[in-house]
Amino acid sequence: MFAKVLVANRGEIAVRIIRSLREQGIKAVAIYSTADRDSLHVQLADEAVCVGGPRPQDSYLNMKNILAAAIGTGAQAIHPGFGFLSENATFAQMCDAVGITFIGPKAATIDLMGNKEHAREQMQKAGVPVIPGSDGYVQDAQTALAVANKIGYPILLKAAAGGGGKGIRKIEQASDLEKAFSEAQAEARVSFNDDRMYLEKIMENVKHIEVQVFRDRFGNAVYFPERDCSLQRNKQKVIEESPCSLISEDKRRELGEIAVRAVNGIDYLNTGTLEFLMDQDQNFYFMEMNTRIQVEHTVTEMVTGIDLVKAQLVVAAGEALPFTQADIKAQGVAIECRINAEDPKRGFFPSTGKVTYLYLPVGNLGMRIDTALYPGVTVSPYYDSMVAKVIAHGNDRQEAISRLRRLLNEMVITGITTNQNFHLAILNDPVFNEATFTTNYLEQEFLPRWKGELASETLQGEKHP
Amino acid sequence: MFAKVLVANRGEIAVRIIRSLREQGIKAVAIYSTADRDSLHVQLADEAVCVGGPRPQDSYLNMKNILAAAIGTGAQAIHPGFGFLSENATFAQMCDAVGITFIGPKAATIDLMGNKEHAREQMQKAGVPVIPGSDGYVQDAQTALAVANKIGYPILLKAAAGGGGKGIRKIEQASDLEKAFSEAQAEARVSFNDDRMYLEKIMENVKHIEVQVFRDRFGNAVYFPERDCSLQRNKQKVIEESPCSLISEDKRRELGEIAVRAVNGIDYLNTGTLEFLMDQDQNFYFMEMNTRIQVEHTVTEMVTGIDLVKAQLVVAAGEALPFTQADIKAQGVAIECRINAEDPKRGFFPSTGKVTYLYLPVGNLGMRIDTALYPGVTVSPYYDSMVAKVIAHGNDRQEAISRLRRLLNEMVITGITTNQNFHLAILNDPVFNEATFTTNYLEQEFLPRWKGELASETLQGEKHP
Repeated sequence: MFAKVLVANRGEIAVRIIRSLREQGIKAVAIYSTADRDSLHVQLADEAVCVGGPRPQDSYLNMKNILAAAIGTGAQAIHPGFGFLSENATFAQMCDAVGITFIGPKAATIDLMGNKEHAREQMQKAGVPVIPGSDGYVQDAQTALAVANKIGYPILLKAAAGGGGKGIRKIEQASDLEKAFSEAQAEARVSFNDDRMYLEKIMENVKHIEVQVFRDRFGNAVYFPERDCSLQRNKQKVIEESPCSLISEDKRRELGEIAVRAVNGIDYLNTGTLEFLMDQDQNFYFMEMNTRIQVEHTVTEMVTGIDLVKAQLVVAAGEALPFTQADIKAQGVAIECRINAEDPKRGFFPSTGKVTYLYLPVGNLGMRIDTALYPGVTVSPYYDSMVAKVIAHGNDRQEAISRLRRLLNEMVITGITTNQNFHLAILNDPVFNEATFTTNYLEQEFLPRWKGELASETLQGEKHP
Repeated sequence: MFAKVLVANRGEIAVRIIRSLREQGIKAVAIYSTADRDSLHVQLADEAVCVGGPRPQDSYLNMKNILAAAIGTGAQAIHPGFGFLSENATFAQMCDAVGITFIGPKAATIDLMGNKEHAREQMQKAGVPVIPGSDGYVQDAQTALAVANKIGYPILLKAAAGGGGKGIRKIEQASDLEKAFSEAQAEARVSFNDDRMYLEKIMENVKHIEVQVFRDRFGNAVYFPERDCSLQRNKQKVIEESPCSLISEDKRRELGEIAVRAVNGIDYLNTGTLEFLMDQDQNFYFMEMNTRIQVEHTVTEMVTGIDLVKAQLVVAAGEALPFTQADIKAQGVAIECRINAEDPKRGFFPSTGKVTYLYLPVGNLGMRIDTALYPGVTVSPYYDSMVAKVIAHGNDRQEAISRLRRLLNEMVITGITTNQNFHLAILNDPVFNEATFTTNYLEQEFLPRWKGELASETLQGEKHP
């Protein structure tokens, strides 16, 4: 096992990784930007190196400075966490080149799965169902029309080189296609100097279901019970849970076996997550793979009792997976609320400032709060707004919800505004309690209703002051 | 189920019970003394009633005021927690008389098990092995000698009416008995006007092993995996764990079945714990029964995933036990450190004062901290010195210890002195890590060595300032 590991991240995930390192007697090296001098991850680490200014590109994305910190402190491995450099193949390669273990898959795998079209092709090869689409590029509107008529509407037309919303069109019916195609292609040509286009079916009334997998260098591979991450806003997950209460044991195994087949096909190393859409007949369609630990790995830890970061270290050190498929048993249900520093009443505008008081309602059975907050710390505008993850575990979904509600009712964070009450409103929502929500639910149904209620409350407040 | 429950306690156990009530949507009524106005349990409850002055006899032992508070707030039941009125048969009777459910066994059972000789007789009747002794009173030194020679030395000679160390003698060998008997009997006669004496074998090199049981009014009874509470100082438990890693599955079942037989024999209701001594051949000897929830129920909750306070409410409400013996599965090992406001370096002298800073290292898998502390709260001299319970759970004992060590290393409580570092020293002790410690270990072996090390550190500090 490693004697010293550098954690190339910040915030709660850096704290979470450092804690697993400490529990195993491994020295932890933190890196930090000048904005993060007083951060908890810096205080908890055995050593800490400042790698640059507040802007991510100057510090947490500064590959050379991070590698220099690792070499200088004698770290044998780097844990990238999530975000920042965690899915950067170049960084993984650079680590390799200087003889430092990048805790994650091989650079070539990161590269392969980072390209959506390549990942899709690869998954099809492994027999994994993908979202119906054009399977390659379409040259003209006529071909596009033929493909679209075959897979069904609505469809998404996308420029191969796409980004920033350019060269992308949602098409509801066949009669709209020709015009949209020529417009989007022209836009792509101008924006990217590349007019290759492809089509993908827009899946509606679907759940976001994902499967975390683990594979070691001896080819041992396992899957974990799925997570339901359908509650999203702005393509960001808001609440995640495991397992999905609508999925049967048989379906769970079927999905898990698909995921294992997929990672065996790409000689995958360490942990990763395959994201699927699930339609109402419980058919699964591969979307993409995250080749790193995810924010919501915590709910999987709560239902299985397995420390996934600890397992990442074991596998990265070249050892065999410390568990078999038979060891992975889901006990009950775990649900996580992502607490963001933002104001839901003002369009989820990010909130920054000094935390003046903090009460974390630690205690009782089935709870966990992962956070780097402490009284006096400053939440700066430079980084992701997620400041805490509140997780509850119960023997069934209702017990988990009751515990989560109790935790959110008790928790106090002052000095910054958070989405704590927004979460409480979701937890009290009947559709949430039935677990039948799909990926559109939060934005298209819950949020407009919630805003309406807020407005009416304000109005009533004015009437009866 | 009850709509409103009064919690007749304070500190972490009151907070812990109120949290379970809130999770089930039951209104919680707190009681408090004038010293506890700002306590967390008061803040978390839906209603709170001041029942008297700081001294326990004026408030938390003030039966009339507590009943008046329950009646006045419309509480349907009273949860007594542990300590205070939790094993007071008179109070249970008074609750009964006014139609309020006492959450615990019937008054007659509390009374029966509260009398050590009666409890012993009752257990023998149920076929539960007890500590070898005189089985009733011995009239004279000759009878005492015959009994003592039969059960073996050392023995403890005790006055039936004993208390405050009067009329009690430890006897190492037969030749000491006659003189000790007449002295102790004379002392008893003078002190209590009652010279009845009895004998009990002093068990050495034993572990304190206890079994929690649950029984409903339909006669369903279950046992939980045992707890090893052998690490004690001044007859107070310091660290508890479950299960005991030296006990086999067969032995566990055997012990559990003894415990179930015992509670069936007394038509027991709700939860309770049978305490045993275990000798080196793993023979068990009944010591006493606690007819209430215990401090260390938390480790059982962590290994079974069952909320024991929630189950207490269910059973007290007249419903059937919400689980069967088959539902109770021990997963891994949980260990608890009792954090006391005391100074181990000054003879464990109690510490009081205002908590100026508090950092509870909530986060990561397998942890729980039960406490009523918050920054700014005052620890008063009136009550028990236990201010927090730090509990870790792991898939094996070593994982639990690693997590516990990490938690204790990170936790910060300033303003009062605690035994946090004393716990850390125990966690690093080889005998603790082997789990072979007996009830004498902490006081007779660990503590003298630890004091020696402290003294030598101080000396070194003086030599090299």
